[in-house]
Amino acid sequence: MYQVVLVRHGESVYNRQNLFTGWTDVDLTEQGTHEAIEAGRILKEAGYTFDLAFASVLKRSIRTLYHILDELDHLWIPVQKSWKLNERHYGALQGLSKLDSAVQYGEEQVHIWRRSLTVRPPMLDEQDERSPHREERYRNIKPEELPLGESLEDTVHRVGEFWKQRIVPLVQKKERVIISAHGNTLRALIKYMENLDETALLDLNIPTGIPLVYELDEHIDPIRRFYLGDPSHVKAKKQVVANQSKVTE
Amino acid sequence: MYQVVLVRHGESVYNRQNLFTGWTDVDLTEQGTHEAIEAGRILKEAGYTFDLAFASVLKRSIRTLYHILDELDHLWIPVQKSWKLNERHYGALQGLSKLDSAVQYGEEQVHIWRRSLTVRPPMLDEQDERSPHREERYRNIKPEELPLGESLEDTVHRVGEFWKQRIVPLVQKKERVIISAHGNTLRALIKYMENLDETALLDLNIPTGIPLVYELDEHIDPIRRFYLGDPSHVKAKKQVVANQSKVTE
Repeated sequence: MYQVVLVRHGESVYNRQNLFTGWTDVDLTEQGTHEAIEAGRILKEAGYTFDLAFASVLKRSIRTLYHILDELDHLWIPVQKSWKLNERHYGALQGLSKLDSAVQYGEEQVHIWRRSLTVRPPMLDEQDERSPHREERYRNIKPEELPLGESLEDTVHRVGEFWKQRIVPLVQKKERVIISAHGNTLRALIKYMENLDETALLDLNIPTGIPLVYELDEHIDPIRRFYLGDPSHVKAKKQVVANQSKVTE
Repeated sequence: MYQVVLVRHGESVYNRQNLFTGWTDVDLTEQGTHEAIEAGRILKEAGYTFDLAFASVLKRSIRTLYHILDELDHLWIPVQKSWKLNERHYGALQGLSKLDSAVQYGEEQVHIWRRSLTVRPPMLDEQDERSPHREERYRNIKPEELPLGESLEDTVHRVGEFWKQRIVPLVQKKERVIISAHGNTLRALIKYMENLDETALLDLNIPTGIPLVYELDEHIDPIRRFYLGDPSHVKAKKQVVANQSKVTE
C-alpha cells in the first residue's frame, strides 16, 4: 500500500479580502500562518514523517510547507517547487473582487466561471502586468505552456500530468510524499486520482490547513482518504469552505 | 565573468553557549535570525537576484537561506540541500564546551584540533547517539561516506568536490547561485577556490550574515571577492570573528 498527504494552504490576504487570486503571489495572513503551523503539529502528533515534499511556486504554498516541515523538524528534506501545482489560473479575474467582477461581467457569468468544469474565465492579455509571460519566475517555461486563464478542466489536465509523471514514480518507490498546494489544484488532483464526475467535483470542499491522507493500492488507485485532526474541527472547517463564496479560489 | 554569493549563517544556540557544534542540528538564536534577515535586506538593496540556491541539511543554514529568499521575494527559486555543505564534523567534541574539552583532552590538544589543517578530532563511535549513521536524514548516504569526525582538510575535500561537480557547472551556465553554509564549510570552499595555503586559511575569518560576492573568470578562478553592506559594519564583524574563540565552529 502506498500513501500521500495533501495540504491546502491556510488563509491568504486575497482570501480575506474576497478577491480572485489564481496565480497572484499573495502571502498568508496571520491566521493562515497559524493554520500551517497547526497542520504541522497535527502531522507530528499523528507520527507522520516524509522523505520529500512538493509545493507550487507561490509563496502561500511554500510558506505553508515550510511551517509544516519546521514543526516536523523536517526542514532538511528535499522540496520540489513547480508551477504545475499553482492554483487554477483565473485569467483577467485575478485581483478583482466578487462585486467588481459581477458588475463588470454579470453575476450569472461569474457563477458559470466559478462552477463550470470546462468554461474558461476571460483570458489575460500577454502584455498585462499580471501575465506570467512577464514574470521572472516563469522565464524558463515555454510561453505556449503558460496559461493566461484556465478552466478547472485545464487545471485537472496539468496537475494530473504532473502527478503521473513526477509524483507517482516516487510514491511507487515508497517515498513518503507531502504536497502543499491550493484549493483548486487539490480538487483537480483528487478529480484525477478518483476519476470524479462533475457533480462530485462540485461537492468537493477541501478545508485549509487540514492534512488529507490518501492510501493507494498497487495501481495508485485510492483505497481510502481521511483528514487528520479532531473530527469536529475538520467537519466545521469543511462546512466553512462549503458555505463560503468560492470567489477567492 | 561568472559570479557566486556565499553567506555564513547567523548566530546559533551553540555559538551563544560556546559549544562545539559541527553536525549538531541546533537552531539560530533570535540574533541569528535577525542576521539572516539583514543579509537578505543587504542583497535586495544591492539589487541581487538568484536562479537557485544551496544550503546544507542543517537547519541553521536552511533557515538563514529561507529568510534571505523571503527578503528577496525569491521563495520560489529551487533550493538544493546537501550534507556535503554541512559544517566540519567535529567528532566526539560535538556538544562539548571549550572548558569541558580542555579539561578532558588538555588545552594544547584542543588548540591543535581547532587550528590544524590536517589533524582530526577524536572520532565519534558509530553507535554514539550523535552519530550520523543513526540519523534519518543521512539514511540514503553510504555509511562509509559519512564522516565521524573531520580535519579541516577532510572538509575541504568534500566541499571542493561538491563545488566542482554540482555548483560549477551551474555557475558556468550563468545561473546566479547563492550558497548558505557554515564557517568552516565556507573557509574550506574558499581554500579550494583560491588554493590558499595553511597560513592564509588560518587568517581567513568569515563574518556571519554578510553576503560575500565572488567574481570568477572563465576558468572559475576568482578575480575578486567583496563583502556587501556598510564597510565599517563588515570590518567590525570580521574583527569579532577573528577575536572570538573559534571553539564554536
